[in-house]
Amino acid sequence: MDTLTPKHPDKEGALGRRYGAAIPPAGPWNATIAGLMEHRSVRGYKPDPVPDGTLETLVAAAQSAATSSNMQWCSAIAVTDPARKKVLAEIAGGQKHIEQCPLFIAWVADMARNQRVSDAQKTGFECMPWLETFMVACIDVALAAQNAVVAAESLGLGTVYIGAMRNDPVRVAGLLHLPKQAFVVFGLCVGYATETGAGEVKPRLPQGVVLHREHYDAGREAALRPMYDAEMTQFSQRHELQAATWTQRVLNRLGPIKSMNGRERMRTALASLGFEIR
Amino acid sequence: MDTLTPKHPDKEGALGRRYGAAIPPAGPWNATIAGLMEHRSVRGYKPDPVPDGTLETLVAAAQSAATSSNMQWCSAIAVTDPARKKVLAEIAGGQKHIEQCPLFIAWVADMARNQRVSDAQKTGFECMPWLETFMVACIDVALAAQNAVVAAESLGLGTVYIGAMRNDPVRVAGLLHLPKQAFVVFGLCVGYATETGAGEVKPRLPQGVVLHREHYDAGREAALRPMYDAEMTQFSQRHELQAATWTQRVLNRLGPIKSMNGRERMRTALASLGFEIR
Repeated sequence: MDTLTPKHPDKEGALGRRYGAAIPPAGPWNATIAGLMEHRSVRGYKPDPVPDGTLETLVAAAQSAATSSNMQWCSAIAVTDPARKKVLAEIAGGQKHIEQCPLFIAWVADMARNQRVSDAQKTGFECMPWLETFMVACIDVALAAQNAVVAAESLGLGTVYIGAMRNDPVRVAGLLHLPKQAFVVFGLCVGYATETGAGEVKPRLPQGVVLHREHYDAGREAALRPMYDAEMTQFSQRHELQAATWTQRVLNRLGPIKSMNGRERMRTALASLGFEIR
Repeated sequence: MDTLTPKHPDKEGALGRRYGAAIPPAGPWNATIAGLMEHRSVRGYKPDPVPDGTLETLVAAAQSAATSSNMQWCSAIAVTDPARKKVLAEIAGGQKHIEQCPLFIAWVADMARNQRVSDAQKTGFECMPWLETFMVACIDVALAAQNAVVAAESLGLGTVYIGAMRNDPVRVAGLLHLPKQAFVVFGLCVGYATETGAGEVKPRLPQGVVLHREHYDAGREAALRPMYDAEMTQFSQRHELQAATWTQRVLNRLGPIKSMNGRERMRTALASLGFEIR
């Protein structure tokens, strides 16, 4: 429990990298929090393997996260085979870092495991086919995976979530031999970043937009969103050449259906994988 | 980046608490990972408030988590008002720790914020009404909240997720003045544990059940589940008097529909809150 703030003189720096000018009045600080604040997605990996036992350490961290009613809906599939990673990269629309990274972890909403308990005990499970149970499984997976990310980054490893596994959940399930009632919620690349692989910390919306007191209140949003737009325009100019406000990015991402890459068919895909989601 | 294993002699102890006899061959270790491993849910809180700025630190950690396409679907509502916490405790089936804890954070899948971008710019958002987008919002919330949990625990604070906010999402939304297309995915109690408030670290399934290599393989499950059942029976005997295997708990929790506490009506509730989830 390291709460010795004087050891962490870079608190203001960390908050500045995350919030630009809109620095919140954050309080207690320590090395673990400093690590969380420095998160950035890594999309370029050295070929170096991760040290022996790293996968088991990450999974131990993942399993230590809370899980609803201890139902433990999460499974992890470690993929290192180049041929398999190549197919996964292709499914993800050609994300080369999936091929590059030495360790790829597919995080599975695994309702099949508890279904097997039902089958073995000859007890029907009335609670399986509901949106609630599906949501809980996905949330369990996310909590677990985030713990693995925190653990990986604390070891100096880079990571990036790969939501594009959902571009074709059926093909991913086939490739990874998933049983019915299991699907890959997202993937995670793990490895050592190349010199240019780790981007800059990406600014987020000011806390005045995201954090509410006692009840929801969007009153400050109209004033604060333009500040964030300016921040993200500068960030884009520094890194991606094509400048754009956050507002414009939201419009691009959520406006036209084509930006979903077919994921509007998720319900049908999941149905074919045995998820009812009533 | 603290990877000096010799500083953490209790690695075997931590793995033993989490896995009982089924200790995995975990590798690199550090203080952050040791902290993750010691997670337990806290259901008894001292009245002491959290230090000034703690909420802002936790939210900064939360916002530092990955967010799909930087859409930032998560909002947080900090609740400290005793009257409001009392109602939330009641909704959650009388969970007294919601009243006890000095800080309760409601974690919101906030599709309303980006919808306001659509409204302001007079651009229709074709990507909103889909299961995929709803899932992504829930996942964003879970990743953010888990970072807040890691940060809180690193500061010596206890936490417990409150999934029972979903017992009545409509009433919670009303109490917290949520706009349409926003709902509380779960709550989180934050505070200092009483002497008996922090339970023992709860054992999890052996890694042989949860971690797969290259592809899914449940081959070891039949042998390992009874081991875990024995572990959880001992855990129950030590702590909850009513002994039960994990298998029995799964049967109790997922068998009869009544164990869902009405959450099988989630889809209807969410529809009334403006979520289409096609």
